[in-house]
Amino acid sequence: MFKTVEWQEGAVRLIDQSKLPSEVIYINCADVKSVAEAIKSLRVRGAPAIGITAAYGVALAANHISADSFEAFYSDLLVQCEVLAATRPTAVNLFWAIERMKAKTRSLRAKPLPELRAALVKEADAILAEDIAMNYKIGAFGAELIPSGAGVLTHCNAGALATGGYGTALGVIRSAWEKHHNLTIFADETRPVLQGARLTAWELQQDDIPVTLITDNMAGFFMKKGEIQACVVGSDRIAGNGDVANKIGTYSVAILARAHGIPFYVAAPSSTIDFDIDSGEDIPIERRDPSEVSTIGGKTIAPKGIQIANPAFDVTPAELVTRIITEKGVFIPSEIRSSR
Amino acid sequence: MFKTVEWQEGAVRLIDQSKLPSEVIYINCADVKSVAEAIKSLRVRGAPAIGITAAYGVALAANHISADSFEAFYSDLLVQCEVLAATRPTAVNLFWAIERMKAKTRSLRAKPLPELRAALVKEADAILAEDIAMNYKIGAFGAELIPSGAGVLTHCNAGALATGGYGTALGVIRSAWEKHHNLTIFADETRPVLQGARLTAWELQQDDIPVTLITDNMAGFFMKKGEIQACVVGSDRIAGNGDVANKIGTYSVAILARAHGIPFYVAAPSSTIDFDIDSGEDIPIERRDPSEVSTIGGKTIAPKGIQIANPAFDVTPAELVTRIITEKGVFIPSEIRSSR
Repeated sequence: MFKTVEWQEGAVRLIDQSKLPSEVIYINCADVKSVAEAIKSLRVRGAPAIGITAAYGVALAANHISADSFEAFYSDLLVQCEVLAATRPTAVNLFWAIERMKAKTRSLRAKPLPELRAALVKEADAILAEDIAMNYKIGAFGAELIPSGAGVLTHCNAGALATGGYGTALGVIRSAWEKHHNLTIFADETRPVLQGARLTAWELQQDDIPVTLITDNMAGFFMKKGEIQACVVGSDRIAGNGDVANKIGTYSVAILARAHGIPFYVAAPSSTIDFDIDSGEDIPIERRDPSEVSTIGGKTIAPKGIQIANPAFDVTPAELVTRIITEKGVFIPSEIRSSR
Repeated sequence: MFKTVEWQEGAVRLIDQSKLPSEVIYINCADVKSVAEAIKSLRVRGAPAIGITAAYGVALAANHISADSFEAFYSDLLVQCEVLAATRPTAVNLFWAIERMKAKTRSLRAKPLPELRAALVKEADAILAEDIAMNYKIGAFGAELIPSGAGVLTHCNAGALATGGYGTALGVIRSAWEKHHNLTIFADETRPVLQGARLTAWELQQDDIPVTLITDNMAGFFMKKGEIQACVVGSDRIAGNGDVANKIGTYSVAILARAHGIPFYVAAPSSTIDFDIDSGEDIPIERRDPSEVSTIGGKTIAPKGIQIANPAFDVTPAELVTRIITEKGVFIPSEIRSSR
């Protein structure tokens, strides 16, 4: 089984998701700059995986900072944290993980530097291990919602590749598959970056879970035909009112699900919930480079000079979300604050 | 200005749409087999353009058949018509055009062969000229429905490239643009074959009409932001009850439009209406090769061996269609029979 992110010999080791599925390549990031580059360029992506990677990035920074005092050390560390935080704006897990690493650092201010460094690697290891554990719980809670024989649609990749392992939405699908062995899984290809075609299809194939790949605009067709009984997606940030930011196209899937009376589930660890904001309207939406739309694998598909929009995420209002599944249980979106 | 299809020196000349926008290449089809191949492999596509091309294909067949009697000639011609009719199942204009050419042939049974051949080229020329004339009328009727300053979304390509010229949905957009000069046009890229990114973006660019290219899964995002005030698409076949078959993804756009209170218009010549069938349920939906989804421009984007679905069209129920615009006027879909 592949490892999405891990600490290996003083470096952050990542499976390069920008190369999948044609090449399975691991990269070692030996400094914060290369960790930040890996996050920015989607070598690692998925809200929980970004959080874990950033946590290791902070540990990596700590390993490279030499300072005479804790104050000098911490001041340098904050600069490196800013580099990591500036990579991507939407997924809250990134900021959550960095804050947790900063808090851990402050709590150890009295310790000698080598001990502090080791403790920060351990803290990042803990974030990773907790993430996997949460995903198994999410999977178990979510599996209860998937009926035997169901067709299940997922969008983007909220799988092992998007997390420490097992996945959130794909954790639900894996857990439901283990239970029923008779589901039909549909994966939206998820343009522009094709996380569904490249990553979800690949990792389900690794697990021998049959999956049918469709283009994003086919979801409505299969809903109308009665072939989809549930939608399960991940999330990059959930607002206090239950609004859900996730990969562009998620909102359209939710609208389609509602129109066809199909339940729409969001699976995410509690670290994805941003209790500091009241509404999805306040979630910053990353706009990415137009070349993600105009080229595919280096091949240009659109005329030169054409205007292109590339919002990377959208917000699905709480009222379109049937339930939010976290490691703590299954929640009505408008009551997500009660999960705190 | 490019020509989508024309008769030139005894051959059918087509702009090769499978090569656009990176290469602007014309091909000459000198026999029915190569015309059929061009239709099948989407070198020419779009319901009206397929009809016109097939009409020229029948004229081409007639030019190559030598027979002693009309009966022998017509019998050979029917075989060639079958080859043309077997190319694509969904667009009704194909069958309509072939039937019209057959009827013309029968009406000229008493004529000498050279005269008959010339008359069939002339009939195909007439189908082409009528198509362009209808598109200008559709454009004028449709422009009345587009308010000044509107954001207008289109899906796939229902433009000059999909017709004899000017276009149906893009005819409406062209006509509305000439009137207002302040519209914001959004083009869905339209996976898997990318007719929006490759063809709609290209032909609007040729006309200096500004267009913003988006992936199919972004339409809901821009509707929610209030940037889209109307949707206009073409059609491959309209059933007697007003149900509309069009490129896969059209149904999803219609659902999204309804959810946002945005009018959804279908623009098509009357030859697209199939009065012989009562409901969209009876429209055959072409399933195309999975490689259209798994590869883009020769680049493989999905894991090997993955299951793929590739329905090329979907059906939008009449109740989701605000109006159908034909060369005869603007119709409530459920009353489309009155346009006969």
